[in-house]
Amino acid sequence: MGLNSNRVEDLSSHETAVRIPDLEAAMAQPAQEIHKVCLPPKQTTLQKLKHRLSEVFFPDDPLHKFHYQTTFLRKLLLGLQFFFPIFQWGPLYNVTLLRSDVISGLTIASLAIPQGISYAKLANLPPIVGLYSSFVPPLIYSLLGSSKHLAVGPVSIASLVMGSMLSEVVSPVQQPDLYLKLAFTATFFAGVFQASLGILRLGFIIDFLSKATLLGFMAGAAVIVSLQQLKGLLGIVHFTSKMQLAPVMSSVFSHRDEWSWQTIVMGFGFLVFLLATRHISMRKPKLFWISAAAPLTSVLLSTLIVFLLRSKSPHISIIGNLPKGLNPPSSNMLFFSGSFFGLAIKTGIITGILSLTEGIAVGRTFASLENYQVDGNKEMMAIGLMNIAGSCSSCYVTTGSFSRSAVNYNAGAKTTVSNIIMASAVLVTLLFLMPLFHYTPNVILAAIIITAVIGLIDYQSALRLWKVDKLDFLACLSSFFGVLFISVPLGLAIAVGVSVFKILLHVTRPNTMVLGNIPGTQIYHNLSRYREALRVPSFLILAVESPIYFANSTYLQERILRWIREEEERIVATNGSTLKCIILDMTAVTAIDTSGIDMIREIKKMLDKRSLQLVLANPGGTVMEKLQQSKALEIFGCSGVYLTVGEAVGDISSLYKAQAQAQP
Amino acid sequence: MGLNSNRVEDLSSHETAVRIPDLEAAMAQPAQEIHKVCLPPKQTTLQKLKHRLSEVFFPDDPLHKFHYQTTFLRKLLLGLQFFFPIFQWGPLYNVTLLRSDVISGLTIASLAIPQGISYAKLANLPPIVGLYSSFVPPLIYSLLGSSKHLAVGPVSIASLVMGSMLSEVVSPVQQPDLYLKLAFTATFFAGVFQASLGILRLGFIIDFLSKATLLGFMAGAAVIVSLQQLKGLLGIVHFTSKMQLAPVMSSVFSHRDEWSWQTIVMGFGFLVFLLATRHISMRKPKLFWISAAAPLTSVLLSTLIVFLLRSKSPHISIIGNLPKGLNPPSSNMLFFSGSFFGLAIKTGIITGILSLTEGIAVGRTFASLENYQVDGNKEMMAIGLMNIAGSCSSCYVTTGSFSRSAVNYNAGAKTTVSNIIMASAVLVTLLFLMPLFHYTPNVILAAIIITAVIGLIDYQSALRLWKVDKLDFLACLSSFFGVLFISVPLGLAIAVGVSVFKILLHVTRPNTMVLGNIPGTQIYHNLSRYREALRVPSFLILAVESPIYFANSTYLQERILRWIREEEERIVATNGSTLKCIILDMTAVTAIDTSGIDMIREIKKMLDKRSLQLVLANPGGTVMEKLQQSKALEIFGCSGVYLTVGEAVGDISSLYKAQAQAQP
Repeated sequence: MGLNSNRVEDLSSHETAVRIPDLEAAMAQPAQEIHKVCLPPKQTTLQKLKHRLSEVFFPDDPLHKFHYQTTFLRKLLLGLQFFFPIFQWGPLYNVTLLRSDVISGLTIASLAIPQGISYAKLANLPPIVGLYSSFVPPLIYSLLGSSKHLAVGPVSIASLVMGSMLSEVVSPVQQPDLYLKLAFTATFFAGVFQASLGILRLGFIIDFLSKATLLGFMAGAAVIVSLQQLKGLLGIVHFTSKMQLAPVMSSVFSHRDEWSWQTIVMGFGFLVFLLATRHISMRKPKLFWISAAAPLTSVLLSTLIVFLLRSKSPHISIIGNLPKGLNPPSSNMLFFSGSFFGLAIKTGIITGILSLTEGIAVGRTFASLENYQVDGNKEMMAIGLMNIAGSCSSCYVTTGSFSRSAVNYNAGAKTTVSNIIMASAVLVTLLFLMPLFHYTPNVILAAIIITAVIGLIDYQSALRLWKVDKLDFLACLSSFFGVLFISVPLGLAIAVGVSVFKILLHVTRPNTMVLGNIPGTQIYHNLSRYREALRVPSFLILAVESPIYFANSTYLQERILRWIREEEERIVATNGSTLKCIILDMTAVTAIDTSGIDMIREIKKMLDKRSLQLVLANPGGTVMEKLQQSKALEIFGCSGVYLTVGEAVGDISSLYKAQAQAQP
Repeated sequence: MGLNSNRVEDLSSHETAVRIPDLEAAMAQPAQEIHKVCLPPKQTTLQKLKHRLSEVFFPDDPLHKFHYQTTFLRKLLLGLQFFFPIFQWGPLYNVTLLRSDVISGLTIASLAIPQGISYAKLANLPPIVGLYSSFVPPLIYSLLGSSKHLAVGPVSIASLVMGSMLSEVVSPVQQPDLYLKLAFTATFFAGVFQASLGILRLGFIIDFLSKATLLGFMAGAAVIVSLQQLKGLLGIVHFTSKMQLAPVMSSVFSHRDEWSWQTIVMGFGFLVFLLATRHISMRKPKLFWISAAAPLTSVLLSTLIVFLLRSKSPHISIIGNLPKGLNPPSSNMLFFSGSFFGLAIKTGIITGILSLTEGIAVGRTFASLENYQVDGNKEMMAIGLMNIAGSCSSCYVTTGSFSRSAVNYNAGAKTTVSNIIMASAVLVTLLFLMPLFHYTPNVILAAIIITAVIGLIDYQSALRLWKVDKLDFLACLSSFFGVLFISVPLGLAIAVGVSVFKILLHVTRPNTMVLGNIPGTQIYHNLSRYREALRVPSFLILAVESPIYFANSTYLQERILRWIREEEERIVATNGSTLKCIILDMTAVTAIDTSGIDMIREIKKMLDKRSLQLVLANPGGTVMEKLQQSKALEIFGCSGVYLTVGEAVGDISSLYKAQAQAQP
């Protein structure tokens, strides 16, 4: 077989006397064009490796813009714009954009301040750390990030996971210093992990947390978080630090003597208020500001109530004193050895991957709404660097928050300047307004958290999964129950396992089907799906719907032999014409490995012994190449590989006719 | 979209005024037949599950013979034949067959006796256990096994792995009883594991040990085993029980004072003899009996030499006393609790899976030579049951040996009766000939082991892997070095990991390509592979070569957008006609999940905003079904899905022409 053959040969010039015993008879048939199956252009191993690596690591060809630039200065500018998107939109920035950004920035600040304090509590960290984390990271992101609508700060899932993973080993109450050190170190590693995913262009790793997995995971986490907030809502003092369903529920009911009615009344009152505003905003997206303003309103209102009743209600626990001032440096609190080092790395990687997934998904969502593109790998670097910087300035792990980004988008944010405005509002709060939060009751934080996480329980999407893809639903369920009953990392691992198992199952047990001809056309299609498709007498046309690998070669061999056996039984039962030729449609066989090649050889050999012809139709480029390299192509000969099923049927059946005419 | 639609509709009846603003203009075009894309026949979830399960667990339809039997007696007979293949060939057995089986049985016995003793030494077990294991398991297998040529008994790989895994924890010298118990218990679990794989029809699990992995693993094991035999060949007394390269080599050289020249002379003499006979038999397969007879000859000869020189050469270590008599029962030595229980299970599973892989592969090889089929799941049950029975009668793990089966086949074995003959010869040996082996030198066993395992180093196959499939070669290398430098289980795990990674890589970064039309046909093919293929103006035809999953949906989205961007740049550069329509050829997209559907929706939405039309060509059955269930089909409308690329191009371009004619 020649390489790069672009000849179009007709039947007469194409083949030898072996195939056409009676050339005249064959010539009497209407001449059908037979196209040669080409090998792909020859490449060296190095070229192939280069192509493969560029597909794996640079699928989006990130430097394509540089191809068209000639001068050094232009390339420098492009490079600056590449690494700091602010250089891209900065020069075009104007007052109209600023006005929009100020409005949206202040709106998300009003949400970020109460949420920051609440989420820090969720991570068992001092509330002030939540505010610190809403100041430095947004500033860094506004320089590096490519999403215009991402509102950066602490988020519920990452806070919860960090809190649960760390407090299973170290008590935040008994060893607050160690706990804080651990949190910052974990944040540092989360950042390093995120940035290296971006730099090494391994961003596809987060794709393995499929949407189905995340759906289940977030719902499970939301259930646990909401139940944990019963501590605050009921005013319980002694509460488990564990994350599973059983210890949380037992904590709730074993400390019934600690329930405080004042707390319960206030908590459920504000919870109903918050949920109602959320409901209104969801029904009418234009009224998004109602739910956006509700948390700060609740905090101010409840603080006022507690302040006024401070002499009468000692049963409501309050935040207490918060230090005024900017983020203190914390790089001296990072540690890189010792017995807790492993825990910090593990927590960092898991919170890192989860917060990255959320950040990227949020960025993509709003980018798609506004029809611009977000570069995943660059986002990872931005988020990673902002967490590294955060870990050195008393911040814990942050990312783009879905709820705040939605508010940001709805409030009309145009660029990342809204993050700068938000950070400035937090700065003012940190410098001057901290005493205001002294009397803020903890119960209000619990209510805010519940309102925030309840939206993560998306049973309608789960229902849709069940309808469309049962195995996706299974992955969703396993991460839900895994998180609820086992633990966060194991729940995630199980769900990823189910997702990978699904891929492997599809490869291990691929679909095979019998094709038939749609009369009057050259189209061959699944017999069981197209009723008009007809079997071609003497032929069995099989399509294999998967690459042929070590993992399925044995199965495919058995299955193909079973199709042949069943076809022969059918022929006997219906008195049809003898089976002479099996055509394997290789269109969907996108790859083959050495076990697959052995399988093809083996089947060819077995069928040869039974005087059945085996031909291949439309093997793909890499498959052809491997068949040739392994010399398996030789056993088929020139006449054993066709470009389409139609040409194979046409050519071989005209050959049979010629043989039949020649014999008598 | 109607289900099971078998209408063939032409263009005029097919579409609405939206698509054809000027109907007359369209009618002026040659009428082209447009075929509807059907959904697969509707099935309930239960039916689908049933179909899926039967494909996963019963791909070979093992009970198909029962379908045609009506009477109870016939079904009973078939059932007996199904579980005990001996009922199939037993009634047809005759003297001619018996003569062949006796000759081959005695031939393999002459090989099995010295190998049995040697392999038991390899597993650090008393030599007699190797003979026991050559007696009971072959008898059981001859009742249950479906391979005619498998010669059953201890094999090198399983012996080596069991020896190395057990002796890393328990010393066979200091705690021989515990070691023996562990070996029998591990054998029991190996059998249980093997039989359950067969009963639960999970045989495909062994497929994950691909040929490439096994190639590297066996070569690594052979290197280690050969080096370990330096203990025997050099006459070293103190030797490591570890399996890695470093400790073995240091043992060899740190005990140079223990080297004994008598042993070395004898050992290398017989090693050269054995390798020479092996070489002769490999060059001339008809002379197989030379290498088959060599081990026994060497044993007898060396025993005679040592016996004659017994007063003069005390430096050659000998086997010593072996007990006469049949296998003692050992079921009382099995244990099911205690601290070593985990080790026994682990060793059992790993030796079980390795010996199963070897047994099945050997069975299949000879079945394919003689054109009969071996049922993998039934073989697993047979091998499993024979190991369970073996563990209760002082046998350690056994399977079909490649070298002895080859001899068996070459010596003309016709049925499993040759195993019975072999077992009888071992019986005679056990009962009467044991004293003969008293003076057999250990060095000869080392030489026999080296000769047996050296054939496992198949560098030519490895070279072929490198040529055909670089990733297969990588899997091979990693198992080779993993076994050599780390450990047997980890080496295997790494190699399986590499193999699975290969599958995932293919799914994560699937191939996409641009198709062009081969002039004068309805064939569309890869532009970079077929030089005669031409781009269709205004169209970009993309083929995706993989299922669309969560793991690749982000990549595919980026990649498709990049193709479009590059096409637009190319059009600008060449002044071509504007891009209007993107056709996604879904032929090789054999499955889709919810993330994939979201990706398709997303791209459709993005292209709609850019006034580019997106249509799908030839989506498969399950893909269509999921698109419909998820309502994604609705956004494409009736006109967005075509049966072939050719019909899509024909229909849409005639529509464009009609529009162009209507506008001026």
